[in-house]
Amino acid sequence: MDKININEKFSLFSDLWQPRIVAELNGQYVKLARLKGEFIWHQHDSEDEMFMVIKGQLTIKLRDRDIVLNAGEFFVIPRGVEHLPVAQEEVQVMLFEPQSVINTGNIKNEKTQRSSEFI
Amino acid sequence: MDKININEKFSLFSDLWQPRIVAELNGQYVKLARLKGEFIWHQHDSEDEMFMVIKGQLTIKLRDRDIVLNAGEFFVIPRGVEHLPVAQEEVQVMLFEPQSVINTGNIKNEKTQRSSEFI
Repeated sequence: MDKININEKFSLFSDLWQPRIVAELNGQYVKLARLKGEFIWHQHDSEDEMFMVIKGQLTIKLRDRDIVLNAGEFFVIPRGVEHLPVAQEEVQVMLFEPQSVINTGNIKNEKTQRSSEFI
Repeated sequence: MDKININEKFSLFSDLWQPRIVAELNGQYVKLARLKGEFIWHQHDSEDEMFMVIKGQLTIKLRDRDIVLNAGEFFVIPRGVEHLPVAQEEVQVMLFEPQSVINTGNIKNEKTQRSSEFI
């Protein structure tokens, strides 16, 4: 039961597309991740997912438009909506999502990460 | 289904201790609030509550210690734990909590706000 300093937590890892869990509450996880490049199109059938940008810029592509997020901005991707996160340069994001979320949603491939590490 | 710019949302209100809802996901609300001064000792029996500081400094007093949060830091108050938010100067915070949360928890008084406004 300690406070979380977001920058301090980011200093503990440098790999991309590997979210770390920094807190849990009410069946939800707060995660931090470094993203760069393009992920894969996927959706989460039963979970809404929140992406908040801490540093850098993230584009969340939807099938009908792009959501461009800078630091201090966030977006909630409703369950069932296909999305593709893309970052030209490395971006630091905070995620808020149910514990049941799998990063690649309905798609299973080499990017699929079944569980995230607590830091 | 739009992105949320936190600073922009804060520019829409100036009253203290009146959280506004800016997003909902998975039965949870994301709220923004301006706090200054001292709230009241209370607890939430069934909900964990997350306080993240966007601007300024917030102290969350617990019965056995103080948690001091600056911008970029957050703390999760576990259900059942008595707490007292205090801010010497006005602080902007983001809250993450279940939709069922009542601001004053187990205490009902003139500060109790049964529902928050969406902005």
